[in-house]
Amino acid sequence: MVKRSGRRPGNQDTKASILEAARRAFAEKGFDQSSIRAIAGDAGVDPALVHHYFGTKEKLFLAAMNAPINPGELIPQALSGPREQAGERLVRMALTVWDSPAGSAAVAMFRSAMSNEWTARLLREFVVTQILRRAVASLVLDPAEAPLRTSLVATQIAGMMIGRYVLRIEPMASADREVLVAAIAPNVQRFLDDPMPEVFSSYNGGRAPGAAGAPDPAGR
Amino acid sequence: MVKRSGRRPGNQDTKASILEAARRAFAEKGFDQSSIRAIAGDAGVDPALVHHYFGTKEKLFLAAMNAPINPGELIPQALSGPREQAGERLVRMALTVWDSPAGSAAVAMFRSAMSNEWTARLLREFVVTQILRRAVASLVLDPAEAPLRTSLVATQIAGMMIGRYVLRIEPMASADREVLVAAIAPNVQRFLDDPMPEVFSSYNGGRAPGAAGAPDPAGR
Repeated sequence: MVKRSGRRPGNQDTKASILEAARRAFAEKGFDQSSIRAIAGDAGVDPALVHHYFGTKEKLFLAAMNAPINPGELIPQALSGPREQAGERLVRMALTVWDSPAGSAAVAMFRSAMSNEWTARLLREFVVTQILRRAVASLVLDPAEAPLRTSLVATQIAGMMIGRYVLRIEPMASADREVLVAAIAPNVQRFLDDPMPEVFSSYNGGRAPGAAGAPDPAGR
Repeated sequence: MVKRSGRRPGNQDTKASILEAARRAFAEKGFDQSSIRAIAGDAGVDPALVHHYFGTKEKLFLAAMNAPINPGELIPQALSGPREQAGERLVRMALTVWDSPAGSAAVAMFRSAMSNEWTARLLREFVVTQILRRAVASLVLDPAEAPLRTSLVATQIAGMMIGRYVLRIEPMASADREVLVAAIAPNVQRFLDDPMPEVFSSYNGGRAPGAAGAPDPAGR
């Protein structure tokens, strides 16, 4: 990360201004609608300098979030392999990362991101664009059901992390990792595999799974 | 910390001092180890005044947490009825409360409680003593397994709330309540009913479920 030489790349004030502008942009407009050009303009620097310091927009986002890990590397890794063990691999990966030294930084990031509406929006962008979107891409899921399925998985994994690492509720907090994998992974797997409830198709605009775009008689 | 003299009931400064002392005590010593007497002493008031303003220790705790609802009333209500629908009733109750006007206050409470270690400890006490303990008491669960089962349920419900109300991840955020009940309740029910994983008995000191105290051959 730390780069020396040329253009005073160590200028911490400039970097801080860029990160601040990035946070503002990502929170206000979301990850997709934010551009490095606009962020650079807001920070009063040349876009090339943003690229030079941070690389891609995605890496800038991770830096703006103080993200201790890069889900772009971890998620595809956890999701490659037999589909029927995806739940197990996801839960074990989440616990392994948070049990590691990076975990306390992750707790800190999570806490600060939850603290108000503005930073919560950043966290939502992080979860959606960096985690869920990749998970959808890595898993074979019906496109009409994929967003609900992956967000259900996210609720279980986020809840597990909060219970174990943030609130530290016993026996979650000190349970052996494999106990939690064994207890939680089957439920994560069911969110991926179980048939969607009957009521889902009416929620989903009356579209039959897999038939995205069919007209909705209820007009919702 | 501002102390005024004379008990002038309704004195907001006095009430605030008591609540501040209560938060400190509950966070430092936990709910069980905190006494109204000690809290009154810390606030420089007579214990009778604490009872006068707030009633029981439990009600003082709810007031100190700015809790918008009283889980002591809701949990037993959600858990009475057929055991095989306990998961469904829990999920629907949680969504109903958070969808109600009290919900935004609950989001605010949750956010502020997550914000640092000190207030997170208060939230843990709240979850453990006001929610999980009641849930254990209302459900017929093997005592050796009850704490893990109820904390697993708590992770799923907490994660659902964070996804829907705090981070507002779509489609969780705007999904019809009954879609979420139908999708999530079966997993909550499984946390209550499914056999504990094999690995649990070694975690649990080698005790077979229901046979608390049996020796553990692995010696863990």
